[in-house]
Formats: sequence, C-alpha cells, structure tokens
Amino acid sequence: MKKHVLSSLGLFLLLLSVINHSYAEDGYRLWLRYDQVQDPAKLKAYRQAIQEVVVPGNSPTLSVAQQELKMGLSGLLGKPVPVSQKPSQRNTLVAGTPASSALIKDLGLGDKLKTVGDEGYLLLTANKKGKKYTVIAANTDIGVLYGSYHFLRLLQTQQDISKLSLASAPKTKHRVLNHWDNLDRTVERGYAGFSLWDWHKLPTYIDQRYIDYARANASIGINGTVLTNVNANALVLTEEYLKKVKALADAFRPYGLKVYLTARFSAPIEIGGLETADPLDPKVQAWWKKKSDEIYSYIPDFGGFLVKANSEGQPGPQNYGRSHADGANMLADAVAPHGGIVMWRAFVYSNEEPEDRAKQAYNEFKPLDGQFRDNVMVQVKNGAIDFQPREPFHPLFGAMPKTPIMMEFQITQEYLGQATNLVYLAPMWEEVLDEDTYAEGEGSTVAKVIDGTLNGHRLTGMAGVANIGTDRNWTGHQFGQANWYAFGRMAWNPYLSSEEIAEEWIKMTFSNQEELVEKLEDMMLNSHETLVNYMTPLGLHHIMGWSHHYGPGPWIKDKHRADWTSVYYHRADEKGIGFDRTKTGSNAVAQYFPPVAEKYGNVEKTPEKYLLWFHHLPWDYKVKSGRTLWDEMALRYQGGVDSVRQMQQTWNALEGKIDPERFKHVQTFLEIQEQEAEWWRDAVLLYFQTFSKRPLPEGVEKPEHTLEYYMQLDPKFVPGI
Amino acid sequence: MKKHVLSSLGLFLLLLSVINHSYAEDGYRLWLRYDQVQDPAKLKAYRQAIQEVVVPGNSPTLSVAQQELKMGLSGLLGKPVPVSQKPSQRNTLVAGTPASSALIKDLGLGDKLKTVGDEGYLLLTANKKGKKYTVIAANTDIGVLYGSYHFLRLLQTQQDISKLSLASAPKTKHRVLNHWDNLDRTVERGYAGFSLWDWHKLPTYIDQRYIDYARANASIGINGTVLTNVNANALVLTEEYLKKVKALADAFRPYGLKVYLTARFSAPIEIGGLETADPLDPKVQAWWKKKSDEIYSYIPDFGGFLVKANSEGQPGPQNYGRSHADGANMLADAVAPHGGIVMWRAFVYSNEEPEDRAKQAYNEFKPLDGQFRDNVMVQVKNGAIDFQPREPFHPLFGAMPKTPIMMEFQITQEYLGQATNLVYLAPMWEEVLDEDTYAEGEGSTVAKVIDGTLNGHRLTGMAGVANIGTDRNWTGHQFGQANWYAFGRMAWNPYLSSEEIAEEWIKMTFSNQEELVEKLEDMMLNSHETLVNYMTPLGLHHIMGWSHHYGPGPWIKDKHRADWTSVYYHRADEKGIGFDRTKTGSNAVAQYFPPVAEKYGNVEKTPEKYLLWFHHLPWDYKVKSGRTLWDEMALRYQGGVDSVRQMQQTWNALEGKIDPERFKHVQTFLEIQEQEAEWWRDAVLLYFQTFSKRPLPEGVEKPEHTLEYYMQLDPKFVPGI
Repeated sequence: MKKHVLSSLGLFLLLLSVINHSYAEDGYRLWLRYDQVQDPAKLKAYRQAIQEVVVPGNSPTLSVAQQELKMGLSGLLGKPVPVSQKPSQRNTLVAGTPASSALIKDLGLGDKLKTVGDEGYLLLTANKKGKKYTVIAANTDIGVLYGSYHFLRLLQTQQDISKLSLASAPKTKHRVLNHWDNLDRTVERGYAGFSLWDWHKLPTYIDQRYIDYARANASIGINGTVLTNVNANALVLTEEYLKKVKALADAFRPYGLKVYLTARFSAPIEIGGLETADPLDPKVQAWWKKKSDEIYSYIPDFGGFLVKANSEGQPGPQNYGRSHADGANMLADAVAPHGGIVMWRAFVYSNEEPEDRAKQAYNEFKPLDGQFRDNVMVQVKNGAIDFQPREPFHPLFGAMPKTPIMMEFQITQEYLGQATNLVYLAPMWEEVLDEDTYAEGEGSTVAKVIDGTLNGHRLTGMAGVANIGTDRNWTGHQFGQANWYAFGRMAWNPYLSSEEIAEEWIKMTFSNQEELVEKLEDMMLNSHETLVNYMTPLGLHHIMGWSHHYGPGPWIKDKHRADWTSVYYHRADEKGIGFDRTKTGSNAVAQYFPPVAEKYGNVEKTPEKYLLWFHHLPWDYKVKSGRTLWDEMALRYQGGVDSVRQMQQTWNALEGKIDPERFKHVQTFLEIQEQEAEWWRDAVLLYFQTFSKRPLPEGVEKPEHTLEYYMQLDPKFVPGI
Repeated sequence: MKKHVLSSLGLFLLLLSVINHSYAEDGYRLWLRYDQVQDPAKLKAYRQAIQEVVVPGNSPTLSVAQQELKMGLSGLLGKPVPVSQKPSQRNTLVAGTPASSALIKDLGLGDKLKTVGDEGYLLLTANKKGKKYTVIAANTDIGVLYGSYHFLRLLQTQQDISKLSLASAPKTKHRVLNHWDNLDRTVERGYAGFSLWDWHKLPTYIDQRYIDYARANASIGINGTVLTNVNANALVLTEEYLKKVKALADAFRPYGLKVYLTARFSAPIEIGGLETADPLDPKVQAWWKKKSDEIYSYIPDFGGFLVKANSEGQPGPQNYGRSHADGANMLADAVAPHGGIVMWRAFVYSNEEPEDRAKQAYNEFKPLDGQFRDNVMVQVKNGAIDFQPREPFHPLFGAMPKTPIMMEFQITQEYLGQATNLVYLAPMWEEVLDEDTYAEGEGSTVAKVIDGTLNGHRLTGMAGVANIGTDRNWTGHQFGQANWYAFGRMAWNPYLSSEEIAEEWIKMTFSNQEELVEKLEDMMLNSHETLVNYMTPLGLHHIMGWSHHYGPGPWIKDKHRADWTSVYYHRADEKGIGFDRTKTGSNAVAQYFPPVAEKYGNVEKTPEKYLLWFHHLPWDYKVKSGRTLWDEMALRYQGGVDSVRQMQQTWNALEGKIDPERFKHVQTFLEIQEQEAEWWRDAVLLYFQTFSKRPLPEGVEKPEHTLEYYMQLDPKFVPGI
C-alpha cells in the first residue's frame, strides 16, 4: 500500500502540472511548503521516526497544532500520517502540555519546562517502555503550536531528528506587526496590493486569508498585530468597527495572535463628543477608560494601543501643553485593568523646523525617562531619521534605562525599492542589533536594550511595519516574504544571524538543493549592501523622490519645511558633501555615549558606511581605497548596478531548478531592479556632478539621459501613497 | 497503465485534500474547471472518442488552443491526452483552419465555414479512411480557440459528442468589458477588491493574472476590454502609460482580446498643451489624429475609444457649443484610418435639472440620428435612469435607426447588493432584450436592435461594466462569476435564455449532479425577482443610500440637484406614491413607439413590475391581487426577505456536495444578504408608512429598529467609491 501511494504521488504530481495551471506555485504558501522530502535517506528516517501523531486535548490552539502536524507531516513524508488518540505505534510524535498529555506529564519535564516560560517549548526524543517518542512539550497550548512549527521546520530543512534535545523561548514578549492599513483598504507605504482587512464584509464574512495570515505569523512566533495605520482614524473605535475587530480577533486567537489598534489621540472629540482631548482632563480620562472597557467587552485579550502623537500633523498631548508621558499614561491607565499595554512612538518632530531632525526624538524623550507607567513601551525606529537604506543606530537605545524600549523595524520597503527590489533586510537589522551603545559599558548592544537584559525590563518587544497585502504572494516580491519571516525570527531571538535565517527560509521556500541554497543565500546576504550602493552609499540619506519616496530626488528643495527636502540632508555644494553632525555642526554625535560619540565625531574613526551621515567632506577627500570621495561615490553607484546584474545572472542560472511562475516573477522584478538601479546611479551622479565638477571615473557607465530628463520625471500613482 | 493512473488520481485527490490546504477550491478557476468527468459511461465514451489531440500550426492563438485542449482534456478524461503533429490514432481530435490543417482543408467545409465568419466555428464528427475525427474547424485562429472552449464545455456539461454537427458564430461584433478602473487601482463601483492592472509594475512585469483574465474572456467569446474608467484620466494617453497599455495588449492578443481606452475629452488641454478641446478646432483634430497614430504605433490592433462626455461633470463637446456627434466624429476620424471605433455613451444629463431625467438621453440623441460617422456606436444603458434593480427598456432602442446602438449592461452590482448579494443578472438582461420596441412594427425586439438585424447594421456590440477585481475569486461573490459568464454568452448570442446559461455555468462551476443543478438553477433564476422585491418592488427606483448606493435611503432629499435624491423618484406623499410619466406627468411614455407608449401610459395595461415607474397611485389603489397598493408593497418586501431565507435553506441543504471553502463563502454571504434584505424592508416600509399612515399587513415582520435608527446609519468606506 505504502509503495502504491508513493508512486501515485509522483505520477500525480506530473499529472497535476499538466492538468491545472491554476494550481501553479505562486508563492501563496510562503515558507509553509510541505512538499515531500527529497533526500531519500532523510525521508526514510523521518518516516520511521514518525508513524503517527498524538496531540491530546481539543482546545482551539491544540486543534490547530494537530491539523498542522497532520497536514505538514503527510506532505513532507509523502503519505497520510495517522492521528491517534493515544500512542499505538513504536514511533510516535506526541505534542502537548503536562495538562493535556498524560505522557508528557509522565516524562517529568518540570524543571526543563520552567526555563521556557509561557510561550517556549521543548523538542525531545524520549524512550519509554520500548517505544520511542518524539516530543513537543510546552507549558501552554501556544507553546505547543510554536513547537510544532519548529519541528516541521526541522524536517523542511532536513535536519536530524533522531536525538532531539532542544529548548526555545522567545527573548521578547511582544512580537508585533504594525499594519499601516487604512479603513478604506489603502495601505500607507504598502506595496503588495491593498489591506487584507475587508472591513465592509466584517464581522460576518471571515475570509480564509485571515486564517492563513494568522497561521503564517504563528509559524514564526509573531504574537500581535496592530490592524490600523499609525496615522489613525477614530472610527475604528466606534461600536460598528469594534464588532469587526472582534471578528478578526476571534479568527486569530487560536494562533496566539493578539489584536491591537492605533488610538487617534483626538478620538474623544471626534467620536466622543467632548471638547478636548487633554490627557489630564478627567472627562477625557473617563472617556478612554470607558472606551477601553467597551473594547475589552468585545475582545477580552485585546493587546492595547499603538500611538503616533504630535508627529507629522497627528494630534497629541502637546496640543494641550502636556508631555508624551502624560498622553501615554492616560491610555496606559485605561487599559491596565485589563492587562493591556501602550506602545508610544518616539518618531516625532515638531512642526517647527529643528536644527537637525536626527536629534529631536532624543531631545524630547530622554528627559521623560522614568515618567512612564509600567505598561508603556516607547517604540523607537532603528535610526533617528526614517527607515533609510542605512542608518546608524538611534541614540535613544540605551539612553532611557528606566523605560522599556521597543524596536520598530520597517519590513515594508518604503525607502528600499518598494515592491520590486530584492533586498533581504535581516543584515540591516542585525547590523543595528549588534551595535554597542556603551550605555552600561562595553557590550551594551542594542539587542540587549530590546530584550530587556541590559536594564532588567520584563516588558519587551519588537515591532515590524508590515509588508503584507492582498497580492497573491502576500508581499509583492517573492523575496519580500523573507523579510516577514526574518522579522518574526529576530523578534523571537534578536541574536540569530541573518545568515542562518536566510538558509532556513530558502530551504523552506524553495529547495534544500545545496547549490541553490548557497547561491540564493549569497545573493540575499549581499542584497542590502547592493541597494545601499546604488541608492545612498557612504552615509548619504533621504535623497529620494518627494512624498512617495520612489526613485532618486537629490534635487528636492524649497518644500514648506527644510527637513523634508533632500538638499537639507546631503548639503552638497562646490566644496563638498555630507551633513556635519560633529561638534562643528549639529553635534548630534553628542547624543551617543562617549565611546560612540568619539568614534562618529572623528572622521578617521567613522566607518565609511556612515561617512556622510556625520561629516561634510570635500570632493577630493581621500577615502580608504585611496580614491577621492567623488570617484569612490561614483564607483559605489556603479558597483550597485553591477551587483544587481550579478544577481540577475545568479537567478537566471537557476532556471529549471525553481518552479516556473516564481522563477519568471523574480526574473522580471530583477529586470525592474536593474532599470531602477541605473536610474538612481545616473540621476544622482549627474546631479552631484553639477557641484563636484569632476568627470566620472573610469568604469562608471555614461548616463543614458540628461539631468534635466531625470528631474522632469514625475511618477504618478506610485503605490503606497 | 491506464488503470493505474486512474487509481492514482483518486488516491491523490484524497491526499491533496489532506496535504495542502492552500490548494483549496477557492473559485479562482471560474467555470474553467477541468476535473475528471464523474459519469462513468460518459467518461468511457469521451476517452474512446479522444485518443489524441492534433492542432497543427504554431501561431500564438493556435498554441493557446492546443494547450487548452491538452490541459482540459487531460483533466476531464483523468489521464494525460497526447498531442500529436498528425493523426496517429483511430479517434483523433483535430482543430484548425483550412490554412493550418491539411485534414480540415481536405474535409471541404468551404460553404459551411462561410456561414460562421471571422470568429465562428464548426464542431463536427467526420469519418475518413476508417478513422474517426472530432473536428474543430474555423476560418481564423481565434475561431479555432472559441471552438475549442465550446468543445471543452460540451464535456464539462457532459453532452453527447459522438455525432457532432454544430455551427456557431457571434451575433454581435464587439463584445466588450468596460472596466471602471482608475490609474490608482481603485475601481469605481468595483466590489471585488481593486483593479487587476498593476500600472506601476507595467510594462515590465506581466502578472499571470492578466493571462488568466484573457483566457477566461476568450472562453466566453469576449473580444474587447476597455481598461480605464469612463470618468477618465488623460494620463493614460501619455507615452509612459501607452507603453504599459501595449504590454497588456501584447499579453491579451493570443486570446483575441483587443484593448480599448477611455478618452478624456479635455486631454488636448491637459496633456497636449492646447488651449481648447473644441472638436471643430483643426488643432484639436490634429492632436487626436497624432495621438491615435501614436497609440497604433504601439498597438496595431487597438480597438478604439469609449467616451463619457458632458455627463456628471465630465468635459465634452457641449463645453464648446458642439454636439455629441461633433465630438464622436472627431475621434472617429482619428482612429478610422487604423480600423478603430468610437463608443459614445448616451448616459447624459445636463447640469441643469431636467423635468424628468428619464427623458434626457432620448431628447439629446434622437435628433442626432444619421449624423455619426460609420465607425461610431452609441452605447445605451438598458434603462433610461441608471442600472436600477429593474428598469423598463431604454426608449432610445429602436429610436435611432441610422445609428448602430450598443447595449451597455452593468455586470457589477452597483444597485443590486454590490458584492454580497447573490443575484443572477441574466434574467434581467433577457427581460430587456426580449422587449418589443415596435420600432419597425411588432417583433422589433431590443435584441434585434443590438444585433443589427432590425436596421441592417453591421457594426454591432454589447458592453458590460465589469465586476472583476483582485479578489481571489475574481468577482467578490462566487455567484458574481455567473454574471461575467452570462454577459459573455449573451453578447455572443442575445437570444440565449438565462436558463440555459445558468445550467451551463452551474455544471461547469460546481457539478453535473442533477439535484444540485436543479436547485441552484432555481435559486439563480429567482434571485433577481427576489432582490427587486426587497429593494424596489412595483417599479420603485433610485431609493438607495447616497453616493455609494449601498443600502436603503428613500429619505434622501435636499441634495444640490433634485434628480440625485430619492424623493424625486418615489414622490411619496400622504395621497400616494410613484412617478407619473404619463401625459398627466412628464409624459416620458411618449418617447416609446405608440403600442408601448399606450401600454405604459395606461395604468390598467402597465405590467405591475413597472407600476410606480410610470404612475403615481393612491395608497389604497387596488392591485391585481386585490390588495391595496400599500399592503401589496409591504408584502413584496416581506416576500423578498422570505425568498432570501429560502435561498439559504436551499444552499445549506447542499453542504457536503460543494467543496468546503466555496460552500462556506456563499453561506456567509447569504447571511449578509438576509441582514441587508431585512434592513431594506424595515427601513423603506417605516419610511413610507409615515405617508401611508397604514399598519403593516399580516405576514410582514415588525421592524427591528425605529425609522430614526435607520436614517442615522451612515456606512463608511463602502467599497466602490
């Protein structure tokens, strides 16, 4: 029988490809592909080790774990794997908690289980009474589910499972996606179609995609989702919409995914009929308390609020002469009785133009350290400007020891080529997490700020601005999936390397075939540096197109505030280029702890990747290569283009080894990326050449058009606006 | 071998359901499902009759036909069907033209082929030299493709194919979808997500969905698509966008699908730098000629322009004191040298409020009969107001004998429950097509106006405002697919009955199982009358929510023009209700030919379905049932709700006979439909009761809320705005 099924499978896979092209591999399955293990030895070992699945208990979360194991293993092993109520075979997979599974209780894992807490799990091999058990054990149902995905991942990546002894627990508590999704289904900075949330048909219609979304998040340990844009609409807090939010929360709950909302600070006025939103006004406080009670009456495990206040036109406590702490604390008090939290964004800059925008968040928030309630986290972007292709770490990390600081990464590629550029972001995130703040002496890395170990915080978290939309492949670019994946994995463990995450993802998403893994890994790991080179090498920043941030726009000037222009940031003139943030300039470097301030304050010690971020330098400044700054810059732009072409070669050589629809998709997107890289190189170099007055060095291709041509380009309807 | 493959298939289908839920039946495949034929006798016969496929020639269209036959037959027969260069089996399927296939040439089909023209085909069984051939023959490659889809449909619906002798040719020349898609990917009156056209990634990236879209259209004979909204944006006529349009046209071409654009009348000013768009200005004429030449340089088979002019704020020739004919002819002259056409919409009403909006299109266009160029069609909506749940046929049908009149149906359900209501629209369309205009005496049906036979026009067409979007199932509601399908079928042949189309669609989309077909057909055929009952029975019209047209709004009044309000149309007061369009009122009936005018002018002869469309009647007017008008109206609303509940029962009884994801989807949507039907009944009856001052008759359920409650409802972000 077994043999027959096997041959059927092979035959049918062949048939399937002929019969129905609508079932093509289009990326919808993400990394949760459970196709049969290709290595015959591994397959045999797995089949022997797992003859049945036992997941006692019937809670919604355990049911999901059971279904996932059954489906996943049946696919990976290429034959239906039976589910039993209790072990009946010699080799059984058992998943559960001491409460749900007698076998797991009997294993006496008490001490070991203590170490993995509320969301962690153990993966073990155990022998008992002549039988062999593969065990997924946890203290909670969600721990079991997380462990189940981990176990499946071991098979997807063809690991040895014969002697498992593995423990895993998340290093941060709140691993949260931020959806900048509007109620009209547009997505701010969304490049993968439109919002998944079909508000009009909620609460009655539950799209299958909501379930698949929750499942994908659970598989990488993401446990929270902020449904709405930080540029918030109070309407979502009305009864009509709360019923819709409840329907989503109910759909997500089995997957351990909590729902959060953005709180529009002026909601008490807009939907509450009050005349003020002053956080110290008792009526306002009462309104938020009542509103929170109402929310929790629908959603007992509601996560809490994310707030963007007094930034880019959003209302906030400063409208009433109050501080960010006053605003955050009022909301925190409203949700505290229900166990909710407030995530208060530090991405602020006043309506008055600051001397250096990079300094403002620090200046505003540092003095508030110690003033926030226990259930408030301050959410800080990785850098002090705004999700640039590369930024030095934000000086707030380490600077507020009494306040839990939450990391905000941007998974959606607002400034990094949007949907069409292949950029694996994990190396950029890793770069930031690894940086040493020196806040408590050497070794005070950003990662330690985030996981709470540096200052002993138990409230910890990481937020990622989602890159997910209605596009069939979820993220617009097939490789955008890797960034969603990497965010979840790094939020679980900020010490994972971008390399190991890439390897996992490639094996799960494409294939375990060695050469393919190696080539794709190489391509992914170099992709961020590649983009930085053709967009903003050597510390350049914020020189992209106006408003939509698409394409180059170093010539942008004369807008209603200087710090929304490009010339404000690059400061190019006939003498040189770069933003002097040392003592002779804005002295932003002084916001860092002394060892860092000294490094960035000294042009010799500053890493070249941040050179023009901190220093204004002459065009003929000699960089480490011995070249002039101008020549080096030009060659970096060219190098970026060359690297994209290298990526194309790598990819094209994989034809036939990757399913055709995804192959073609990425191939075409790489063509677009090449066009855009050339556009960046040509436009930026032509523009800066008007200052440098120097020829392009040898090896740099001649621009296809004139500077005037590039300046008159005016892309319309760039998605994400 | 055969047996083995068969059993593999069954086994694998079982496995598939376990292994990968991402391959669930979600509606993406539309009616092009090629699952194995279930009837064993039919399956055997089909397998015997088709042992191989021969499609000589390698034009793009013939290649598509070959692929489709191979894929479709392999699926339907449950085994790979080989493709051969020339017949090698006893029983062969041959498809081609006399030019592409020697065998077809040898069959001497000359005379028969003459009858089917450029797009038609023959399906024949032929014996030759002891071999049996099933033949798909046509004069053109596209005819072969259309015939291939027809042939596959015969198997999908389990028809006898042993003695084929069938000819088919389209009765209209231009069978065109109108996409009201904006360049920012929103869709006006679109309820199935967003626009399929991802302008930002064009022209480089060709989404697989473009191909699947073209294929679906080809399968039902649709041969044109207007990509852009009639509320037009001139930007699509710029070089940047024309390159994108070309990429779509190239993708669609193998499927016989021509591309059209909407022409913004003021484009010469907006993108041409001219100071006027006066159609009699030589510079304007020259600009459009040059623009057309440019378009054809990219797209040699560009279809032409669709224009909405001088209507709802759109610019047009009247801005310059010129007529619609002046405007249309200018554009017609520009595209004529390239074989293009102009479709000029008759949906106009002036900015000044007319005495009766229903009369305006006739008043403006009738006098222009004979003034249009040969390559202009006037596109007329089925009724004189605006795609209401039910309208009497438009008086322009038959009234312009010298002008080709194109039908405009609305497939998207702007006024018919939008995405969530199950309404099969074909009976409504059939009702209009069957109406007798008496233009040339009895038997002058609307269908004969449309297919050109009434007045001998060779330029003919039917337009359908598309209900297609990015939703996975294409149309939002699974049953919305039936309306896309029916539109294509009726455009091909306006004399098909809605019943036979429903039967085809059900069998192809769900199953050939007899009881299921019968029940779904019954449900579909009654669904339009059901909706009319709970929305606008007895000739009521235009009493829906303001602007988004979602939900009831009979109380809408005091807007800046009366004919955008509900009270303008229902004219309810304490005495009665209805719009008097007879001699004592607006006398709109006089626009019809005498027999019709007499019928609608006489309350006794007017069909009850149009009663309040043409007559203002007292609340105690006795209708045919013997009840008062008020009681009848109330019972109709209740009857509509009851019918929705009946639909729910019918559907729920089919659980297990329909794949689970689609079953659940429709089940949930029917719940929403019930809620909305109740909402309509309660809101409208409570409102009209303030005039009628009569109690609800027995059998009508008590409203759940007060009138005030319904009036304060204010749905936001209703899709399609």
